[in-house]
Amino acid sequence: MACDVYVAGMGMTPFRKSNQSIEALMAEAGKMAVQRAEHRPVESIYMGAMNVEEFVGEGNFAAFLAEYLGLSGVPSSRVETACSTGAAVFESAFYAVASGYMNNVLVIAGEKMSHLPKIKTARILAEVIDREERRYGATMPALAGMIAHRYQKEFGLSDKRFRRVLARIVEKNSTNGVLNPYARAKRIITQDMYEKGRFIATPLRLFDCSPNSDGAAAVVLTSEKTPIRVSGVGHATDTMALMHRASLTSFSSTRGSALRAYAMAQLNPTDIQFAEVHDAFSIFEIIGMEDLGFFEHGQGWRGVEDGDTDRGGRLPINPSGGLLARGHPAGASGLAQIVEIALMMLGEVDEKRRIPRTDVGLAQSAGALANNNVVTILERSDRRRVMTTGWVPEYKPVIQVGTPENIPETVDDTGILETYTTLYATPEGFSPPHTLALVGLEDGTMTLARYPKYLEKSQFTIGQKVLIRKRGDSVIFQTRNLIQTVKDQVKTLFKGKNLTFAGEKKRKRN
Amino acid sequence: MACDVYVAGMGMTPFRKSNQSIEALMAEAGKMAVQRAEHRPVESIYMGAMNVEEFVGEGNFAAFLAEYLGLSGVPSSRVETACSTGAAVFESAFYAVASGYMNNVLVIAGEKMSHLPKIKTARILAEVIDREERRYGATMPALAGMIAHRYQKEFGLSDKRFRRVLARIVEKNSTNGVLNPYARAKRIITQDMYEKGRFIATPLRLFDCSPNSDGAAAVVLTSEKTPIRVSGVGHATDTMALMHRASLTSFSSTRGSALRAYAMAQLNPTDIQFAEVHDAFSIFEIIGMEDLGFFEHGQGWRGVEDGDTDRGGRLPINPSGGLLARGHPAGASGLAQIVEIALMMLGEVDEKRRIPRTDVGLAQSAGALANNNVVTILERSDRRRVMTTGWVPEYKPVIQVGTPENIPETVDDTGILETYTTLYATPEGFSPPHTLALVGLEDGTMTLARYPKYLEKSQFTIGQKVLIRKRGDSVIFQTRNLIQTVKDQVKTLFKGKNLTFAGEKKRKRN
Repeated sequence: MACDVYVAGMGMTPFRKSNQSIEALMAEAGKMAVQRAEHRPVESIYMGAMNVEEFVGEGNFAAFLAEYLGLSGVPSSRVETACSTGAAVFESAFYAVASGYMNNVLVIAGEKMSHLPKIKTARILAEVIDREERRYGATMPALAGMIAHRYQKEFGLSDKRFRRVLARIVEKNSTNGVLNPYARAKRIITQDMYEKGRFIATPLRLFDCSPNSDGAAAVVLTSEKTPIRVSGVGHATDTMALMHRASLTSFSSTRGSALRAYAMAQLNPTDIQFAEVHDAFSIFEIIGMEDLGFFEHGQGWRGVEDGDTDRGGRLPINPSGGLLARGHPAGASGLAQIVEIALMMLGEVDEKRRIPRTDVGLAQSAGALANNNVVTILERSDRRRVMTTGWVPEYKPVIQVGTPENIPETVDDTGILETYTTLYATPEGFSPPHTLALVGLEDGTMTLARYPKYLEKSQFTIGQKVLIRKRGDSVIFQTRNLIQTVKDQVKTLFKGKNLTFAGEKKRKRN
Repeated sequence: MACDVYVAGMGMTPFRKSNQSIEALMAEAGKMAVQRAEHRPVESIYMGAMNVEEFVGEGNFAAFLAEYLGLSGVPSSRVETACSTGAAVFESAFYAVASGYMNNVLVIAGEKMSHLPKIKTARILAEVIDREERRYGATMPALAGMIAHRYQKEFGLSDKRFRRVLARIVEKNSTNGVLNPYARAKRIITQDMYEKGRFIATPLRLFDCSPNSDGAAAVVLTSEKTPIRVSGVGHATDTMALMHRASLTSFSSTRGSALRAYAMAQLNPTDIQFAEVHDAFSIFEIIGMEDLGFFEHGQGWRGVEDGDTDRGGRLPINPSGGLLARGHPAGASGLAQIVEIALMMLGEVDEKRRIPRTDVGLAQSAGALANNNVVTILERSDRRRVMTTGWVPEYKPVIQVGTPENIPETVDDTGILETYTTLYATPEGFSPPHTLALVGLEDGTMTLARYPKYLEKSQFTIGQKVLIRKRGDSVIFQTRNLIQTVKDQVKTLFKGKNLTFAGEKKRKRN
């Protein structure tokens, strides 16, 4: 019933720190896309930027951009889903064309964020994080760090091996990125360089995190047949807070959006020949590949180790360099992935960048901490489908959606350290090192907890018992061992005195 | 080819200053809509708020709202087009259902803005205005004031008559509003009360301006037949700056969106039985009715005078009370209009509020200063179409789109006063009275100009010759008469001295 939707043209600016305005960047990408689309008359504009109000102080940007493009009069809507904005704009435009009411729609997504002081950018970016997590000083790297620690533990990887896997992703993506004229990466990050990178949020280091950038991407969608068909789009949300999730090493928003996209395309993960996966952090590439059904849960890292995901491998992942090497202008990245896939499909990339098979490509974009994700599947229109009817879905993930529940009002109990991170790049009002953990409670829920500054640095082990306490509005955690250590130290210090410790027996005050 | 799209349910909160959070307001409206839609399973959420980042300090609101609604997992996209956001969200959701890919989509729009200090709200709202206009201290009321002055002049209305017409709109809408439980209006604004209202931006007074409010509205769209069909949607943009428009008394964005909506619905203006028109300012109701084809250009005010647009009239306009009486939570108003039409169509309003014919209703929403407008047409599904094929469009407006051109680099010339306003409620950095004008230049373009504070208060007449000068980054204007008056005054003061005035001969400095 729905009309087929095709990609008629695409454009992109280089992603880097730019002196151009956001409108100039978006116009550059848009113009390129319209030119490649042979100047089909644009009937509607769908544009996206994550937070143009606070990054550049402008509202009403959809109308503004239409005028700036010289298309004043043409309908123009802004779509926003945090860091997956670029892919969500594409999705909304897709439905407009699929409805049959629109023949040619211009999709543009961009972001300008690197002109602001870092602390301000950090504050704006923090708005996409759950309020409670934000209050604890959690940042995107902090949450990604907790996920990484958990993944390492859950699948039994040694520190060294896990570090090597992450370094391998960084090396692969930077190797791909240096060949990509649109990417900001100018050098290959070797294992050595990776290891010399400072910690941002343990175990993640500098090169595990995609750099904030400026840039824009654009696509013209059309109802008229072109070499590239949009064969599937899917979209799903998840809880804002990590602590409300059923899994810390799988994103149900990726699984949900993939399920919908595969069903629409009538394709299975095994049909996908290459993919752009949202590697805002290196660990997300592994989790993304697993959630998309390319690898079993907990096996993605092996694919990296074995070279399966290299440019010449069985299933090239991020042959563009990904967000890690291309840079991550929040609202633009989701659409940039789609543009990269289209360019690769048309063979419009340098010979050195080519990959073996490019008939079916998938892009996966994540909004904030993977709570508003979008999956897009592009396919060569001339691709012969072996079986055009009777598609059997091979991808049936169990999509677990956490039930947000309030954390207990008062906590003065023990719990299990589910995961943790030590943040070395802290947001306003917090100072490094800032250790945060997710602590599992007896009732099956988790609470976020911070490790108090007044305690000495400690070693944490996922799965260990910890003591949690309510201090003002926050939950703090202490390791039993440390408490014992402190007690012992104090006892040594006051040798012979009769001491009572808090928690053993409460001292009376006032 | 496209699927028919129907309204399955709708909900709305009262619009007023609220202590509830924006998510609570949106959830209240959303829950109501889902309940009326008999709990059809929601496959996707389209939500809208104009500026949730700056009004409430939250990003990633689409995912947040999905979770807050207990629908975490369901796809959720935010759509934004400034003050027409509510209608644009509805439009995007409409295409998703029309495509055949979605059966039931929940549309929610809301805004929370009245908790902030007025000066901060004003600063945030100003972001939707053209940069150049903003720099001169222009506000939405200032621009609306200029439009009002121009309308009065263009169609030869005396001050008294024009004031009466505006007062009549305010009286009509407040009369409708007090009967509407969702509206914030609690009393009828009589002609007397209207005239006692202080000036906000001449000739507009307090009651000509819709009040900032908090509130939310929601609709469930479905592909399954219900009593109400969405028979047309249309959307169009216009230049940001008023000075770049071909007309100051007609909005091409309304004409463009109406043209598209009528064409999709295969209906003409004469088929419309009642309408909700974007009366952010009373004058916009007149212009809206004309641009929608209900009245000839320049004749809308007669419809008001004659009572045609009253609740019992030939074509009731804003039987809900409109934005003037309901209140204007920026992102919510566009969807609230649609909800009002649906409620009216289903007869789900108090008997006193009923209007004669409710088979075809139209909602027109304006983004910022009418540069991103959306028109929506709802129709009773059981309405017998007299002629189902061979529709002849009766509405063929000439849609003029201004060509933005740079104002001349240096101005030291004469021009024609095209329109003006004196602003009594000024934005940060400006003090009242602040007079702004649009001055027509010889090359056919217009420039914005301010009247310098150091000159005495003057009478302005549209069409008069004025002197314009570049002062720093701004253009200022002076009336020839005043200059002469000042010169005369000075000459009287310095009787017998030999004086040279600036502009006649330049004094040499340094």
